[in-house]
Amino acid sequence: MIRVAIQGGTGYTALELLRILLRHPQVEITAVTSRSETGAVSDVHKSLSGRLELNFTNDSPEELAEKADLCFCCLPHRASMETIPSLLAAGLKVVDLSADYRLSDPAAYEKWYGHVHVDPTRLGATVYGLPELFSAEIPGQSLIANPGCYTSTSILALAPLLIANLIHPTDIIIDAKSGVSGAGRTPKVETLFSECNENFSAYGVGNHRHTPEIEEVLTRASGQKVDVLFTPHLVPMDRGILATIYATPVRETTAEEIQQAMHDFYRDRPFVKVVGHLPRTKDVSGTNFCHLTTRFVRGKVLIFSVLDNLIKGASGVAVQNFNLMYGFEETAGLL
Amino acid sequence: MIRVAIQGGTGYTALELLRILLRHPQVEITAVTSRSETGAVSDVHKSLSGRLELNFTNDSPEELAEKADLCFCCLPHRASMETIPSLLAAGLKVVDLSADYRLSDPAAYEKWYGHVHVDPTRLGATVYGLPELFSAEIPGQSLIANPGCYTSTSILALAPLLIANLIHPTDIIIDAKSGVSGAGRTPKVETLFSECNENFSAYGVGNHRHTPEIEEVLTRASGQKVDVLFTPHLVPMDRGILATIYATPVRETTAEEIQQAMHDFYRDRPFVKVVGHLPRTKDVSGTNFCHLTTRFVRGKVLIFSVLDNLIKGASGVAVQNFNLMYGFEETAGLL
Amino acid sequence: MIRVAIQGGTGYTALELLRILLRHPQVEITAVTSRSETGAVSDVHKSLSGRLELNFTNDSPEELAEKADLCFCCLPHRASMETIPSLLAAGLKVVDLSADYRLSDPAAYEKWYGHVHVDPTRLGATVYGLPELFSAEIPGQSLIANPGCYTSTSILALAPLLIANLIHPTDIIIDAKSGVSGAGRTPKVETLFSECNENFSAYGVGNHRHTPEIEEVLTRASGQKVDVLFTPHLVPMDRGILATIYATPVRETTAEEIQQAMHDFYRDRPFVKVVGHLPRTKDVSGTNFCHLTTRFVRGKVLIFSVLDNLIKGASGVAVQNFNLMYGFEETAGLL
Amino acid sequence: MIRVAIQGGTGYTALELLRILLRHPQVEITAVTSRSETGAVSDVHKSLSGRLELNFTNDSPEELAEKADLCFCCLPHRASMETIPSLLAAGLKVVDLSADYRLSDPAAYEKWYGHVHVDPTRLGATVYGLPELFSAEIPGQSLIANPGCYTSTSILALAPLLIANLIHPTDIIIDAKSGVSGAGRTPKVETLFSECNENFSAYGVGNHRHTPEIEEVLTRASGQKVDVLFTPHLVPMDRGILATIYATPVRETTAEEIQQAMHDFYRDRPFVKVVGHLPRTKDVSGTNFCHLTTRFVRGKVLIFSVLDNLIKGASGVAVQNFNLMYGFEETAGLL
Repeated sequence: MIRVAIQGGTGYTALELLRILLRHPQVEITAVTSRSETGAVSDVHKSLSGRLELNFTNDSPEELAEKADLCFCCLPHRASMETIPSLLAAGLKVVDLSADYRLSDPAAYEKWYGHVHVDPTRLGATVYGLPELFSAEIPGQSLIANPGCYTSTSILALAPLLIANLIHPTDIIIDAKSGVSGAGRTPKVETLFSECNENFSAYGVGNHRHTPEIEEVLTRASGQKVDVLFTPHLVPMDRGILATIYATPVRETTAEEIQQAMHDFYRDRPFVKVVGHLPRTKDVSGTNFCHLTTRFVRGKVLIFSVLDNLIKGASGVAVQNFNLMYGFEETAGLL
Repeated sequence: MIRVAIQGGTGYTALELLRILLRHPQVEITAVTSRSETGAVSDVHKSLSGRLELNFTNDSPEELAEKADLCFCCLPHRASMETIPSLLAAGLKVVDLSADYRLSDPAAYEKWYGHVHVDPTRLGATVYGLPELFSAEIPGQSLIANPGCYTSTSILALAPLLIANLIHPTDIIIDAKSGVSGAGRTPKVETLFSECNENFSAYGVGNHRHTPEIEEVLTRASGQKVDVLFTPHLVPMDRGILATIYATPVRETTAEEIQQAMHDFYRDRPFVKVVGHLPRTKDVSGTNFCHLTTRFVRGKVLIFSVLDNLIKGASGVAVQNFNLMYGFEETAGLL
Repeated sequence: MIRVAIQGGTGYTALELLRILLRHPQVEITAVTSRSETGAVSDVHKSLSGRLELNFTNDSPEELAEKADLCFCCLPHRASMETIPSLLAAGLKVVDLSADYRLSDPAAYEKWYGHVHVDPTRLGATVYGLPELFSAEIPGQSLIANPGCYTSTSILALAPLLIANLIHPTDIIIDAKSGVSGAGRTPKVETLFSECNENFSAYGVGNHRHTPEIEEVLTRASGQKVDVLFTPHLVPMDRGILATIYATPVRETTAEEIQQAMHDFYRDRPFVKVVGHLPRTKDVSGTNFCHLTTRFVRGKVLIFSVLDNLIKGASGVAVQNFNLMYGFEETAGLL
Repeated sequence: MIRVAIQGGTGYTALELLRILLRHPQVEITAVTSRSETGAVSDVHKSLSGRLELNFTNDSPEELAEKADLCFCCLPHRASMETIPSLLAAGLKVVDLSADYRLSDPAAYEKWYGHVHVDPTRLGATVYGLPELFSAEIPGQSLIANPGCYTSTSILALAPLLIANLIHPTDIIIDAKSGVSGAGRTPKVETLFSECNENFSAYGVGNHRHTPEIEEVLTRASGQKVDVLFTPHLVPMDRGILATIYATPVRETTAEEIQQAMHDFYRDRPFVKVVGHLPRTKDVSGTNFCHLTTRFVRGKVLIFSVLDNLIKGASGVAVQNFNLMYGFEETAGLL
């Protein structure tokens, strides 16, 4: 049994992680930290009533390291990079669900996040935990940067066609739509029920922080400079992301060739299903699956990709990374 | 044309009031105040873009009195009673949408609201603005206490049968269900989309502040001491209240007699429709109507009452009161 | 491994059952039948894409009996009782998710369902599969009548207090609220998105078929004639039921005594959690748990009970019954 | 007063039309037809209880012509073109809310709708009722083809920039998102609450019938052949469309120039508001307004356009056309 701690345990990704870990055959949850809460974890996450007998703690890295082997870090970005070096120094393995170790260039981080990165050396050396692309690098790592939700939806859709040299790397539009849980549990007017319900809108046009993450990972994976125009929208639902992606073929191709390239790429991956129909977010809701399909319309390649932003887009892939780090079955706790 | 100001113009009831008043043939909106906002009203209420050319002001009562004849006061309770005496002294008529002048007894106010009432004399003398019961008292008043949303839903359902002596005044259960907009626009975890959506729960069991308001008004209207057990619930929708009410007949009666009593009471009231079917909140959404029906099941009288909490439950009835104060057609601006 | 078939596999309870059974360590799904569909099960239930390689069949009972040991019967009522005798005769064990074997009296069945029961002898002899009350009778049965969703929500809330003689058996109001999935997958105007969304209403007032089921089971469990006034409502959400129950104490009691009686009754039951807070449907969504609490207000006992209508209210409890029939851990596949 | 009939009065656009017309100062509603319903209109549209005392009729065109001056035709396409010639022959003016007279070429109609057009001469001669482009042609017409909902959203966004020669006419992507009410009131599995709620998906990719309508009208309006790639999506909400449009500038331009072109075009149009912020569907919900904005990102022109599909996208613009046909104020009944 691996003893696991959660750092920053009051939000939605932490709750989802707890739900998954409670089902994981190799895991014992030993600590859940919070800077603001001190009572029972199930007082904040009432769905865990009678299922998890732990109180929030404010453990130091050293105290955590006595209780746990690995820590899932669910802190906000910035807080994360200020904590993780101490967690690692204390001997813990870490899966970081924040954005702090996802980019490789400190200057890019500073540009998009508005403050200097305090751990720049490690930034460039951390493995990006998207198992469908980088599973070979994950086993044995001490720190994994868990991918963003829009990012995974987009990268899983685009990587196979870029790697197969089927689409132009710099003429890509990602029109993405996400449920509201991605915005977190901190109260804001914008995410009140009465603002989001019966409403649909774009946001972060031209400046969403998942843009450089998508570009950098796809550039690395495909070996060519990738540019994307990324437009996120807010859907009045709890969870789920659908990315509608428009790309341009680099040469004559067919609908069949494109779909086949996708099938070939994911043939042996347990959590990505290439389907024939147009996937719906509900098809993957509550699961660690990503469903993908392609269309060829009026000379453009269209890709439709769906996943659950809290699971395959956050806590599920975190456990997938955990499984790979320890050599467990990749699907353990996730089916 | 009556010049109208709105005091406290950033919330949902203020927006709804603005929408109604923009359609009212006798109204000119001359001021909208806010303590926190200073820009265009349409920057906060974007649905009014290009339709209302006013900036928020922080006018004193005297300044408001120069601009307006009547002020709709949309401040929170407590702030309301601290402002209204000055508004009246400056010569404005006032419709108060807060709870501050709804009860008649300062001790009851203090018990339920947790602080002393600062304007106790006026508290006892203010007309309760439920036109279906008190329309005769409203014309010519300077101050009207606009009713609460659960309150109107419940009182409109119960008053006819209590006045007709058909049901026991002290054996009444009101199981009420409301959309989320009633909780207002202040950010709280409880009213985040991700908390309310796909969720249903009770709240305020045994201690909701609309309880004494329902009891006091029904006691006054029926001439007998009325007690109710009131249980509110939160429905994942923007607007609408349905009250399911269980009462006990005081004597042998029939389904027909009960429904007839309801019909007779509302025969000449433009906004209350006694229907045969089970009313749905959507039937009255966006309108100033209340739909009611009755059933007689296993010896109990059941009443189903629906209205739009922001309109018939707040801003619509406020305009109905305004119309009656000035002798306009009761339905002006409201159909 | 137990080989399991699903009879009538196109609806929402069948899908939920498939999801649970795919995780169950002792189960192999060997057949899913349909009278209307012939293609891949995952063409209808697209969330199962790549996870279940079965086509719908139209197997006879004998064919099913060759493929499976037990059949979960998800047919509509009436079709169910016309099929189950053959399934049993062919040697299959059966968990029936329809209402056909829940009542014990053929006359009551005929009155509430509008047609004669064709298997009246078995009707009276079938065990009602609510494990929290009847777990001792379930092991070794060939046929289990799986309970209704409103029924379980209500019975789990009331049984402990009736058995403890704390509340009057004939003065009970159940004001219940359900998500829309309970209405099934057959297209009807009433369950269109545009009818249910942003809407709330009562339905089936005084004549809902779960009424006699609640009364009969509570009468049997408590040894006294139980009458309930049951009022269901439709909530604009996928899943979840909350029952708000009003009862009258039979003697002087306290909030603590009532809550304690509830705690005592469910002390050793894995799926019922007696909580202190007001439970929300979302707390149990996607799980086999029921959360309960009590309040004592103005002389009335209030009980709040929530469960997921598709899981604890249908397919989850069906698997719970399956586990007990075969002597597996009661929670197998359900945590 | 103009006497108005509604042909095909059971659907959502008919209900919305009735709501608007009940407020219109120049309109008397004299007939509402249905082939399936015979009772009170308010038995189907319960929100009209006590507000409209009409029964559904099955009037012949001649009977309708005796009762009414103009008929809003809310029949499905195909039924519409089979009825409208008789309505016109009987002397009625007609606003057709179906798609039957929107295209000008019978061959295009046959290709996209799958059957021959039975009134091809009139097809080519009918004015397309988008007042923001064709208001000069509408007065005095006997028949107006009311535009589609996606169509208006898209055309209002693109026409100004195409007419100003700012964007390429054949490199346009319209990624559109609509609420569910656009799918109508006929029961289908796809539009059940339990299918649409908590779900988001694309549909009709590459073959939605609004594609040729958008292309033909924009081609006519801009004098250059316009091609669009149109991808509709279904949003879990009642009403509202947002179109996110990606276009390519034909020459060096700036964000300011683009936004200014939009402002200039709509300066005197009462129902189109060019805003600075990203518009939300809720901003225009329940209104006849369209809100638009532009962005210039990574060399692409982005346009965001929102309207209420049932009002500005159907019944509101129908009344706008009615107003123009009779020379009433364009905004009569619509503010």
